Order: sequence, then structure tokens, then C-alpha cells
Amino acid sequence: MIDQARTIVVALGGNALQKKGEASSSAQQRVADQTVRQLLPLIQAGHRLAVVHGNGPQVGNIVLQQEALNTPEVPTMPLEDSGAMSQGLIGFWLQQAFHDAFEVQGINKAAVSIITQTVVDRDDPAFSNPTKPIGPFYSQEEADRVAAERGYNVKEDAGRGWRRVVASPRPQRIVEAETIRQLVESGTLVVSTGGGGIPVSQADDGTLSGVEAVIDKDFGAALLADLLDADTLMILTAVDAVKINYGLENEQSLGYVTADELSRYIDQGHFAAGSMLPKVEAAREFVGKSPGRRAIITSLDSALEALEGRAGTTITY
Amino acid sequence: MIDQARTIVVALGGNALQKKGEASSSAQQRVADQTVRQLLPLIQAGHRLAVVHGNGPQVGNIVLQQEALNTPEVPTMPLEDSGAMSQGLIGFWLQQAFHDAFEVQGINKAAVSIITQTVVDRDDPAFSNPTKPIGPFYSQEEADRVAAERGYNVKEDAGRGWRRVVASPRPQRIVEAETIRQLVESGTLVVSTGGGGIPVSQADDGTLSGVEAVIDKDFGAALLADLLDADTLMILTAVDAVKINYGLENEQSLGYVTADELSRYIDQGHFAAGSMLPKVEAAREFVGKSPGRRAIITSLDSALEALEGRAGTTITY
Repeated sequence: MIDQARTIVVALGGNALQKKGEASSSAQQRVADQTVRQLLPLIQAGHRLAVVHGNGPQVGNIVLQQEALNTPEVPTMPLEDSGAMSQGLIGFWLQQAFHDAFEVQGINKAAVSIITQTVVDRDDPAFSNPTKPIGPFYSQEEADRVAAERGYNVKEDAGRGWRRVVASPRPQRIVEAETIRQLVESGTLVVSTGGGGIPVSQADDGTLSGVEAVIDKDFGAALLADLLDADTLMILTAVDAVKINYGLENEQSLGYVTADELSRYIDQGHFAAGSMLPKVEAAREFVGKSPGRRAIITSLDSALEALEGRAGTTITY
Repeated sequence: MIDQARTIVVALGGNALQKKGEASSSAQQRVADQTVRQLLPLIQAGHRLAVVHGNGPQVGNIVLQQEALNTPEVPTMPLEDSGAMSQGLIGFWLQQAFHDAFEVQGINKAAVSIITQTVVDRDDPAFSNPTKPIGPFYSQEEADRVAAERGYNVKEDAGRGWRRVVASPRPQRIVEAETIRQLVESGTLVVSTGGGGIPVSQADDGTLSGVEAVIDKDFGAALLADLLDADTLMILTAVDAVKINYGLENEQSLGYVTADELSRYIDQGHFAAGSMLPKVEAAREFVGKSPGRRAIITSLDSALEALEGRAGTTITY
């Protein structure tokens, strides 16, 4: 039973858009359609949804396509531009999937995607240690050349060659948050903050400039949920619950945990960097700011059950 | 003197985003910044603006980048997906340019871009005679191959080789119009319907599917202006006014014309297909539907003067 209408920020992981190795437009749109069908019961229950999506495989491919040509007439665009393109692409797929589901189910609701900029801090320590590989593999010679010519940071990637690496700074502010809030409150399904948002830095005069970086979409979703003062942040991923002692004999799924309990598990090293760690950190950050908030980490399949408290991991203040 | 606050749909031509041959991101963003500075007086005068932009050079480059790789892992996306990417890219540039101008001028206003789908009719006669070239040049052999493998229509292009051609159907409906209207009415600067909108067709059950076509952005802007019931459709282009007897001794700029007068000039063949013709047709279509509407065709430089009736061509009912 649903107790009340909530504002829910849903963060969709890579598996919500793409099955491994099926990169065609039609294959990705089929997965998006399936994802939307699984989210529909939340909307039918009366909740207001703001959807945030990842963009790793899609922006990766856009960068590869850009690098494959790169002539004066068709130059490679900076990474933030590829991020903007991926928001357009994935936003189109998702808003069409929601539109179609609403039509078929007779739900009178609009679905739109908002291009979203996320302000990052130029002094974020992430910029002094870029770690996220992006774009094609290079020989050491090529890597030296692009580093010199374009100012790229390059790193050797586990024996497979050299790649560009960029920073993954923490999101500080979502520029379009007020518009997103206005639309969500009026009942519109809003897709935004794709890939965590297009990273921008803000100068002293208030103007913005694109930054070649990537933002973790779970931190972006947590920030959006905070700015919307959402009731619930729902991080949907490939597993049905957060686990401690993962892969060991005493592995245990977490049902309900407080932010403090979760902090202890984080400190004890239960969660893998780049995988479950950013999700639990994002969840803790969101709920830790205000009592009454909750974060849910679960799989797409279990979304509705988890919202009703019968599946997944629920993190409270 | 401004008489009253109006809702104005502004259609930006290619010259508002790119100078010939300057395709880099920074060069295009400089042009976008300049464009926005020229539109600012309209906003400062209290008018509500909805901005529609073209995407020809940008989507053309995205298609070339896609075709340059096209592997199973990084497949070429259909044309509607490239259109969506171009909306993300150009929307990002424009909304950032507006944001920055608002910050510097102390204007308290949000600027957002909405990914926009435009419904076209599968029975539109344009589909039986596709005319818009897109993508790379092919040899006749390659053209035959892509035609067979991908179902492309190909045509010989003025001795320069073969190219894919797609249809340019008339826009019938803008799917996200109600959200755009809501935002514009509440004072938000909205960028939408980029490249005329992403072409989609609607099935009997209401669901949408992407269509590999291009939509004329001026017709898209006229349709948006109609759906928003805007006061003014402003088509900004490279020339300061519509001209009859263009290039002849008796060439004459049009100041004020009615839709009927404009129709006569159209019938007399004064306007070049693919250039001024779609602009005057879009203008006539918008004003012809309701008295009190007006359309303005002028250059970016003359936008404010034209709105005050002191420059450009004004078309009334």
C-alpha cells in the first residue's frame, strides 16, 4: 500500500539503457522501453518522478566517433560537448519511452528532457589526480603526442595501451534545478542531469565554462534530490540490495540502515570503489542532510517493492 | 518604445551559430554568445522568448563522425538520433550563453533547452521525393552498396559524387509544446524544437518512432509559435529584409506586407526554394491562422529595430 505521493529522484544505472555489447540504437531503445515499463507502477501509484541517467557507454562511443574523424572541418569537440550530445540522445530515447508508455496506459502526463549543467569546483582535488579513462587506446608514442598537442592527461591502462584520463569531481550545484523543480511539482516527468550533468565551472562574474571531466551520476542524482527536496532518492542498479562482506561466507544484504551505520560500513571498507561505494556515499549524503528523507538502493525489478519497504536497501537519517 | 510584453518565437538561422568554416566548439560558442547579446534587448524590453535554432552544419558533422567509425561496438545511429545529439549540443551552447548574459546583466531568469520531438505524416509527399543531402560523399559503387545494405536513398550531387538524400516533411505537431508553453509563460527562456524538432511518426496507438528525415526549422518555429499562440514569429537570417525582384534593377525590400500580398509574391516566383521561400511560407502560415499575429523576417542586427517596426519585413494577417 502506498501511503502518500512522494517526489522521487530515480538514478538509472548503465543496465537500464544498454545490455552488454548491444550498442545499436534499436537495442538501446528496447532496453529503455523495458526500464520505463518497470518504473511505470511508481507513477501509477501517484509519485512524482525525476529521472537521472548514466551515460558512460554512450558518451564513450561519441568520443570514439569524434576521434575517428577529427579534421579542421569536422573537429573533435571537447568532452563537455560530447556529454551534452549524450544527454540529447538518451533524453530523446527516455522521453519517447515515457511518452509511449503514458499513451498506452492512458496516463495524462508530459515527459521531457532538460539539458543540464552541473557546476564543479576547479579546486576539487579530483583535478590533481584524474582517474577516469575515456576515448580510444593509444600507443605510448600517440599518447605522448595527444598529451603534448591537446593537453590531455594520459595513463597506461592495465597493459591494454594508453588512454586519456579525466577527473571526476564532486557536483556542487545544478544550474537548471529550479526549472526541473517547477516541472516536477506540476506533474511532468523530467529526465535531467544525464551523466551527472555537463560539468561546468563558474567564474567570479557568474559566467559558466565547460570543463573536460565526468561527474558520477549517483552524486548528481543525490544533489538533484537535495535541491528538489525530494522525499526519496532511488538508485537503481544491477543488484537487488547493498551487501556487506560481499563474496564472503558471511555476505549479508542490508535491509534498513541509518546513515551512521552505513558510514561505519563504508569506513570498514565493505564497498568497492567505482561500483557500490559512490552509490552508498551518494545515498548517505542525501539522507544525512535532513530527517524524513530516505534513499533506496535496489534493482529495477525490485523498485516498487523496495519503495514499499519489502525489498532492497533503505537508508534513513 | 515597446508597447507591451509579447511572446516571441525566434528562429535562428545557421549564421547565428557558425561562421563559414569555423566549426570548432570554441568558435561556435563565440558566435552563439554574440547572437545572444543581440537578442538580449528583446528580453530586457520585457518580452518572453522561445528560441528555435537550425542544426544543418552540426548534424551534418555528427553524421560524418558516426560514419567515420561504424563498427558493431560503435554503430552509426539513425538520423533522428543525430538530430537529438545536435539538440543537446546546440542547446547546451545556447542555454549557457543566455545564462551568462543574464548573470552579467543582472537579469533574474532561467534558460533551459528542451529535447523536442516533432510529429510528421508518413504520407507526406516529401517521402516519395527525398531531396535533402546528408552525410559523406560516395562513389557510385559505395552509393549502391549503402542503398542496398541500409535502405538509403542516394542521388548524384552536382558532379561531386553520390550522397544520401532524405525527405523534408512538414511538421504536424510538437510533442513537448505544452511544457514549452508552461515554461515560457512563467518567464523562462526556452530553447527548443532544434533543427525543427526530432522527426517522429505516431502510430494508431499513440506511440512514437523516430523517422530518418529533416524538418525545416522555420516551419518548426512557425508551428511552435502557433501552438504557443505567440504574438510574433521572428525569423532571423543573413539579410535585413525580404526582397522582391532580388538581384534585378528593380529589387525592392518589403517593409509591411499582408499574408495575401505575400502569397501573390510567392506565386510570382520571387523567392528561392531552400532559401527565402520556406521563410516567407512559414511566416504566411503563422500569421494567416489568426488576426493580430505578425511575423518578422530580418537579420540578427536589426531584430530590435524590426520589432519596433523600423526595420526588416513585417507580415500581418
